[in-house]
Amino acid sequence: MKLQHVIESQQFTVPLLMELFDRTRRMEKIVARGGTQDYEHKVMATLFYKSSTRTRFSFESAMYRLGGRVLSTENGKEFSSEIKGESLEDTIRIIANYSDVIVLRHTEEGAAKRAALISPVPIINAGEGNGGQHPTQALLDLYTIYNECKTINGLSVALIGALDNGRTVRSLTYLLSKFDRIKFYFIAPPEMQVKPDILAYLDKYRVHYELAADPEKIISQVDVVYQTRIDRERLKRSDIDLSAYNIDASVLKKMKSNAIIMHPLPRSVEIDQTIDDDPRAVYFRQSRNGLFVRMALLTILFDKE
Amino acid sequence: MKLQHVIESQQFTVPLLMELFDRTRRMEKIVARGGTQDYEHKVMATLFYKSSTRTRFSFESAMYRLGGRVLSTENGKEFSSEIKGESLEDTIRIIANYSDVIVLRHTEEGAAKRAALISPVPIINAGEGNGGQHPTQALLDLYTIYNECKTINGLSVALIGALDNGRTVRSLTYLLSKFDRIKFYFIAPPEMQVKPDILAYLDKYRVHYELAADPEKIISQVDVVYQTRIDRERLKRSDIDLSAYNIDASVLKKMKSNAIIMHPLPRSVEIDQTIDDDPRAVYFRQSRNGLFVRMALLTILFDKE
Amino acid sequence: MKLQHVIESQQFTVPLLMELFDRTRRMEKIVARGGTQDYEHKVMATLFYKSSTRTRFSFESAMYRLGGRVLSTENGKEFSSEIKGESLEDTIRIIANYSDVIVLRHTEEGAAKRAALISPVPIINAGEGNGGQHPTQALLDLYTIYNECKTINGLSVALIGALDNGRTVRSLTYLLSKFDRIKFYFIAPPEMQVKPDILAYLDKYRVHYELAADPEKIISQVDVVYQTRIDRERLKRSDIDLSAYNIDASVLKKMKSNAIIMHPLPRSVEIDQTIDDDPRAVYFRQSRNGLFVRMALLTILFDKE
Repeated sequence: MKLQHVIESQQFTVPLLMELFDRTRRMEKIVARGGTQDYEHKVMATLFYKSSTRTRFSFESAMYRLGGRVLSTENGKEFSSEIKGESLEDTIRIIANYSDVIVLRHTEEGAAKRAALISPVPIINAGEGNGGQHPTQALLDLYTIYNECKTINGLSVALIGALDNGRTVRSLTYLLSKFDRIKFYFIAPPEMQVKPDILAYLDKYRVHYELAADPEKIISQVDVVYQTRIDRERLKRSDIDLSAYNIDASVLKKMKSNAIIMHPLPRSVEIDQTIDDDPRAVYFRQSRNGLFVRMALLTILFDKE
Repeated sequence: MKLQHVIESQQFTVPLLMELFDRTRRMEKIVARGGTQDYEHKVMATLFYKSSTRTRFSFESAMYRLGGRVLSTENGKEFSSEIKGESLEDTIRIIANYSDVIVLRHTEEGAAKRAALISPVPIINAGEGNGGQHPTQALLDLYTIYNECKTINGLSVALIGALDNGRTVRSLTYLLSKFDRIKFYFIAPPEMQVKPDILAYLDKYRVHYELAADPEKIISQVDVVYQTRIDRERLKRSDIDLSAYNIDASVLKKMKSNAIIMHPLPRSVEIDQTIDDDPRAVYFRQSRNGLFVRMALLTILFDKE
Repeated sequence: MKLQHVIESQQFTVPLLMELFDRTRRMEKIVARGGTQDYEHKVMATLFYKSSTRTRFSFESAMYRLGGRVLSTENGKEFSSEIKGESLEDTIRIIANYSDVIVLRHTEEGAAKRAALISPVPIINAGEGNGGQHPTQALLDLYTIYNECKTINGLSVALIGALDNGRTVRSLTYLLSKFDRIKFYFIAPPEMQVKPDILAYLDKYRVHYELAADPEKIISQVDVVYQTRIDRERLKRSDIDLSAYNIDASVLKKMKSNAIIMHPLPRSVEIDQTIDDDPRAVYFRQSRNGLFVRMALLTILFDKE
């Protein structure tokens, strides 16, 4: 299996995804047994030009459960002025001297690709820009669907919320499209609907999708509800009742008994806490899967060396 | 021994304290031998909404001396905006996915208790709010007294300084009250005297105490002097000579030959550096005991799993 | 070999340097084999009152490759208010309770020496003030020269750029002066020439040096070109063409075929990226040598205990 860097979700073929998920399962068992020290010689650098405690901890914990060490930057704003002034390429070349893998979160789209072009060690894109890629989030989302639904082919998936600027939605849509007979339902206020380039992509690969403003009719048909946050301040109109997009006990009643509710977290009011204990609410397990998927990715990158 | 979380000093019974101190002694020996790798699979997260380099290093070093790994946040102000916006409960649930114990320092009183209610992994309160609990500081203070004086029962203890808003003083008073025949001397400018609820607590449990504004008479009688900082700017009056509360060579002369001087550190002028080498000045050993006590606490939490 | 602390480059004798370089070679081999766990019980604290991601990562990676652990402060500005207010000596005494070596970067000249006076664990100066010492940079620079040129005695060394306030230039000049028949060429705009105290030092030890404003004539004669950055804003005159100090393909053509080009990095325009692949461009290898030299220093400090 050839994987040099993890830059965007498009680079993952279905066989590579299945190999990744197989490893992910093994990682889950290894963590249950207390982790491994097999990678105790490995050093990971987390280079975060924009802070994200959650993503950083997930990667760093993955490295620790493998026995490795971590060079950590909590917040790019606190980088030394030297690093701020120099080219990304030079920074990567130097940090590659000190580490075996670099986890990069950057403010600019395309930064991970630029880094990968010159880096002698693997680069993992941990999110970039606003509309850019966040492939490991998409991979853990996909693994969660696979693990909970036992299949991906043939699933009906509703994506709800502010779909226009969510890189999570974008990456996940690309990944799901690689499987057979997926039906997408994009549910959002009209001004926050998914961008035309994604629809063009789905058209090109003849993937079924529907757009809707109202979750009411669709929620009872789908296998997966992927909920995201709607930023109230972005809506200029005041005539929309955003609570129609929230998920609470009354929405839950309409859902299939074996459907699942996902959320990239953090959540605000769009998922009511009272449903947290319902077995269909998988978002905390989803977050935990991030640990196992990232461990699996790291081992793929390390083992091929 | 049952210890699920470390939230407040009141939860420690005398037998639990003795067990803790027994373990603390063992930890001191383990560190002298170079530490252990027995807990190499364990991951600790330090989640500090308010920075405290000293406390953070003490916990992180404790984890390292046990062989473990650390997910670290230097400063909550630098948390990603995501974590800032979400509920403490959701943050704890997610970080518990990535760690085996969470050390929490928070700006609000009661935060550690709230976290413990929902956390699947042990929570250790590393200080909260201004008047709230800081139980591990109280435990290391108590261990220092026990280790230096070889007993706790029957000791006379003077607490000096700004006693009204010191969470250290509060936690230590609760802990010492569990032992027999303790005599407290609270020495402070009248406007900074210890709060009524603490005195009510001592009254309820029939613990001897005296209030004084002047250390002069009392200093020669006590076994333990617990010195704290007085923030000059908090005093509205200008007629108080705060230097009367300082400890220097002349005060030292009046003290018992086997008394000890403690301070939670950092110090300002309230302890003169010229007495640092006196054997009664135990504050740097006290700080070092923080390492051993925290190691002991971590092993209690890990071993019961 | 006696080495208690690493404070300034002057403390290194030629035999000590040779011992250090011998160890550095061994470290290079150890890293090629994947590092060692020999120092797994050791804890290093990086106490950076001024952030420097590059230097911090280099030290922390060195510790990890030796198997050790790291207490890390990303940025002194984020230290707790407690540490900000207390004396450096008290801070060092406390952090020495939690670590086996302290790597200190401070804003004031002389801080490392003050820390070393009272610290029970080794102090390593990782840079201080603006004109102060940065001895480990000088050591890795010297090692790079030694490793690339196979000797140090008899070399001709051109130092180019803003030589007046570079602590790198200062430390390296002191170190090189310990060897035989070194010829220095200080090339800078007149207002940025090397300070008189360095020239007085070279005069005292009868070391050959020349001052020049123009690299043109000299560049073809030297074995080592040590390039540094010129901050355009510091120049009040506008009649100087600073590009005369830059190194690009045309300059490279004039250089000896076995000369080397060094730079402490980060670089701006003073070294053109098009020459990065020339074998004489050693600055990225130089940066990597920082890892090995720091590993070697740490083992010297640990092994003597």
